[in-house]
Amino acid sequence: MSEPTPPSTTSHPPSNPPSEPQPQPSTLHIGILLFPGFQALDVFGPLDCLNVISWKNPTITPSLTLSLISRTLSPVSTQPPHLPSALSQSILPTHTLTTAPPINVLIIPGGWGTRAPLPEYITYIQRVYPSLKYLLTVCTGARLAARAGVLDGKRATTNKIDWEEVVALAPGVEWVREARWVSDYGGKVWSSAGVSAGVDMCLEWVEGVWGAEVADQVERIIEFRRWRDGGVDPFA
Amino acid sequence: MSEPTPPSTTSHPPSNPPSEPQPQPSTLHIGILLFPGFQALDVFGPLDCLNVISWKNPTITPSLTLSLISRTLSPVSTQPPHLPSALSQSILPTHTLTTAPPINVLIIPGGWGTRAPLPEYITYIQRVYPSLKYLLTVCTGARLAARAGVLDGKRATTNKIDWEEVVALAPGVEWVREARWVSDYGGKVWSSAGVSAGVDMCLEWVEGVWGAEVADQVERIIEFRRWRDGGVDPFA
Repeated sequence: MSEPTPPSTTSHPPSNPPSEPQPQPSTLHIGILLFPGFQALDVFGPLDCLNVISWKNPTITPSLTLSLISRTLSPVSTQPPHLPSALSQSILPTHTLTTAPPINVLIIPGGWGTRAPLPEYITYIQRVYPSLKYLLTVCTGARLAARAGVLDGKRATTNKIDWEEVVALAPGVEWVREARWVSDYGGKVWSSAGVSAGVDMCLEWVEGVWGAEVADQVERIIEFRRWRDGGVDPFA
Repeated sequence: MSEPTPPSTTSHPPSNPPSEPQPQPSTLHIGILLFPGFQALDVFGPLDCLNVISWKNPTITPSLTLSLISRTLSPVSTQPPHLPSALSQSILPTHTLTTAPPINVLIIPGGWGTRAPLPEYITYIQRVYPSLKYLLTVCTGARLAARAGVLDGKRATTNKIDWEEVVALAPGVEWVREARWVSDYGGKVWSSAGVSAGVDMCLEWVEGVWGAEVADQVERIIEFRRWRDGGVDPFA
């Protein structure tokens, strides 16, 4: 094979410290934010992992709900607001920021759209954060979480191309530059590097929540070459 | 620009033979099929690569169009028809099978839905195939192409989990089991292994169409650890 092989052992143990085993919640009410100019793969990488889990595990499926949350119920486009001729796709939200049911897992994707003010989204993140069991940001999704202040005092990462700009927004965050993904010491806050790193982070999170067999099952079904060491980043 | 470019380090040269350089078309009219129970990542892996290209390359963007083609204009769900409690997402088509503009690139994603009869889709594939410059199938998207007969006499691959079932449908296809992706000798027909392999295939195709710099740009922006040897398959 011609590609870097993911290391099988962790060479940077401090960047992904083991966390205490936690009781598995009876139900995970997952929400993902959709805003104009979201990055398609930031959303559909992790969500397709969850889709596959929900097909294959009848004991898990009844304990999962998924809300696709936007400002309105109108379709949300990946179109960057400043690039009207870019190719794009539109997906349907299931709930608005005001009608979404209670969630205990929030996924925040990145994308060009994270540069917009999005005040309702920032308020939503601030409002739901205390009741979350897990917050997962993908790529520049960390920009929204940082702007909401919920990463302050936490270990986090983000994509490499916007690195300086994002970290400057939130000096109170313990930013980790060389990371494919980072989980904060308490295990509540997870963040990934750019776009496709969200799948690696998601599978690590899945392994922590439901065990290695479930993560391996997803990996096999989506034929994804998982990167197992969050502390080594080929793009850092 | 010539295409397709063979992998730079191919250990199984017969599986991705070099083909004759072809003139680059002035415009690529890309269509992707959406049907109930499509696999989300089969669609959004390749499409997000194209999205990024359209942001970053003002000389390419005007030469690209994208149609998301379904039987009707209603939102199309990833929900497998037989798994009503599975998590799912819905996306908006832009055209129907009968109203879609002429295309010269067709992408066929896989998913549970490829097991359904889908007669209108089969007819559509048969109808547009002769005018295509490129056909790309992802995962069990090869099932639809095989059922349409357009893979007969061609080299192709598909995902590993449905392997026996798909190859049995089309004994006239030169199926290549150990392949992350395969391009047929003429360079018109491309097919990938399961789900995430579609991104590797897409980047190889992108490199052939627009050159290595454009492919590398996408790889860097989506922080994707690209697999460069189509003839080696970690899941075979």
